[in-house]
Amino acid sequence: MDHAAPPPLAFPTQPEEADFARRVRDSFARQGAMRAMGAAIARVAAGEVEIALPFADGVAQQHGFFHGGIVSALLDSACGYAALSLMPADAAVLTVEFKISFLAPARGALLLARGRVVKPGRTLSFCEGEAVLPGPDGGPDGRRVATMSATMICVRDRPDLRG
Amino acid sequence: MDHAAPPPLAFPTQPEEADFARRVRDSFARQGAMRAMGAAIARVAAGEVEIALPFADGVAQQHGFFHGGIVSALLDSACGYAALSLMPADAAVLTVEFKISFLAPARGALLLARGRVVKPGRTLSFCEGEAVLPGPDGGPDGRRVATMSATMICVRDRPDLRG
Amino acid sequence: MDHAAPPPLAFPTQPEEADFARRVRDSFARQGAMRAMGAAIARVAAGEVEIALPFADGVAQQHGFFHGGIVSALLDSACGYAALSLMPADAAVLTVEFKISFLAPARGALLLARGRVVKPGRTLSFCEGEAVLPGPDGGPDGRRVATMSATMICVRDRPDLRG
Amino acid sequence: MDHAAPPPLAFPTQPEEADFARRVRDSFARQGAMRAMGAAIARVAAGEVEIALPFADGVAQQHGFFHGGIVSALLDSACGYAALSLMPADAAVLTVEFKISFLAPARGALLLARGRVVKPGRTLSFCEGEAVLPGPDGGPDGRRVATMSATMICVRDRPDLRG
Repeated sequence: MDHAAPPPLAFPTQPEEADFARRVRDSFARQGAMRAMGAAIARVAAGEVEIALPFADGVAQQHGFFHGGIVSALLDSACGYAALSLMPADAAVLTVEFKISFLAPARGALLLARGRVVKPGRTLSFCEGEAVLPGPDGGPDGRRVATMSATMICVRDRPDLRG
Repeated sequence: MDHAAPPPLAFPTQPEEADFARRVRDSFARQGAMRAMGAAIARVAAGEVEIALPFADGVAQQHGFFHGGIVSALLDSACGYAALSLMPADAAVLTVEFKISFLAPARGALLLARGRVVKPGRTLSFCEGEAVLPGPDGGPDGRRVATMSATMICVRDRPDLRG
Repeated sequence: MDHAAPPPLAFPTQPEEADFARRVRDSFARQGAMRAMGAAIARVAAGEVEIALPFADGVAQQHGFFHGGIVSALLDSACGYAALSLMPADAAVLTVEFKISFLAPARGALLLARGRVVKPGRTLSFCEGEAVLPGPDGGPDGRRVATMSATMICVRDRPDLRG
Repeated sequence: MDHAAPPPLAFPTQPEEADFARRVRDSFARQGAMRAMGAAIARVAAGEVEIALPFADGVAQQHGFFHGGIVSALLDSACGYAALSLMPADAAVLTVEFKISFLAPARGALLLARGRVVKPGRTLSFCEGEAVLPGPDGGPDGRRVATMSATMICVRDRPDLRG
């Protein structure tokens, strides 16, 4: 993103990944916004996606925390891909709406955004997400700094959209 | 943001700007995330802020639209600064929560994010925002692609926070 | 609703009402919750519905204001029927989600809930609503006490659902 | 609520209830809206409140489900009282905003609305709620039909408000 950006994160992938995981990773790789901010997919499971982002000036707000909009971008992607992972192979996913609550300032070196589908549907999927700061003081699951509630829509028969 | 990034936007400012506008611009200039994505403040008035962002790969989602999270980051900043413009000079602003609805895919060359305070308060300020694609087909006000409803909080007596 | 409930409100209807307005009124008449709380449709136009509710103990919260949930119920109905007014005659409407912000305590004798469609769609309709207290101090449009942002879905081919 | 309303629900309370639980029950008893619709507090714990509502025509929408606005009223009260249970004894609670997602039509004989505080604060408390239909097919925890994300505010030094 800028000169001070840390090297890109790399997470191991399974040698023989499921189709849905490949579709999620392919689509994520086409999200210029995720690449530009230095985000990486940390985990893909059926209905669950985790995205990691190291702190850098290019994702900060005015007090040196992760920018709330960047946190919401990560969670939006995590929830959208969690929904896509359960959709048919020819479907594309679009965000209908989301709400995000900022429980605490997101000050830390690494942010994890976890999205999961709480109610899948043929047309609409309801998702929930949480952004956590991992670390010793946060316990094994980290300290929650934001929660998201999102609605995703499955789009088909649109040759101009995929993933 | 990346090699293909367009030159930064520049908007004229008033020669003798009000104090609140200077505070908004100073704080915005410290938001690394806004700078990295190429966003610029287009207008500051009491209780109203407009931010402009040219399209680039670094702000795109997988179908080549503006990423929903980037749209929400712009609107979050626009609403936050709209609230800050009405706060005391020593206050800082933090986002409590927001909801964003995506009315249409945000495909275009330039995005304008407009935030305004609908109910100011000593502690909480309620804001609304809209993201529009300007252009001939969108009429003088542009075509709305997203709307936001946000709650901002005024923080004082925190020497570590300003703006 | 209870002994102290005021007599039901009655608003004039147009002698030759459009089909969509009749469908809205028919469906509203089947909403037991609206009837029980004493709510009445004040106005139906294409994409816009206004519902009125007089104050009574049966719609109050603990401080003697209109209960926030009751305000949200009115706005939910107003937004849902605004969406239904633009749907095909055989469609039913269901609420996907909504967010409501409480700008001020809703203390007054009468509450008006106005819903309107901001972006209609074949499947989803985006609506916005506002709850106002009419009166001399509120100006011709009244004083806003709450705003809603809602997503409605059009349901067809479900013989068990109508309106 | 009306002639067909079932007898009021009654849940056992602890013989020596904590102060916060008594404050919650006292305040709930003053919510005319809850009483009118036939709702009852099923459980109070520190930071958690459950409210139960039997189905009746007076809480129905047009298809015979629980009205979405009624579901939101229950969850609003459950979340608000969950927040109040952690507040100082002289505080009152008001809802700032909430978002509710309707995962499935709420068709059943009894609805349980559970609210809990996910992040308490001196001024703001973040809460989450879920509405479930209990029953054999829903498992021990019931079937979720709605989820809420809410922000509550603690109000003090307002002699006109309590609870």
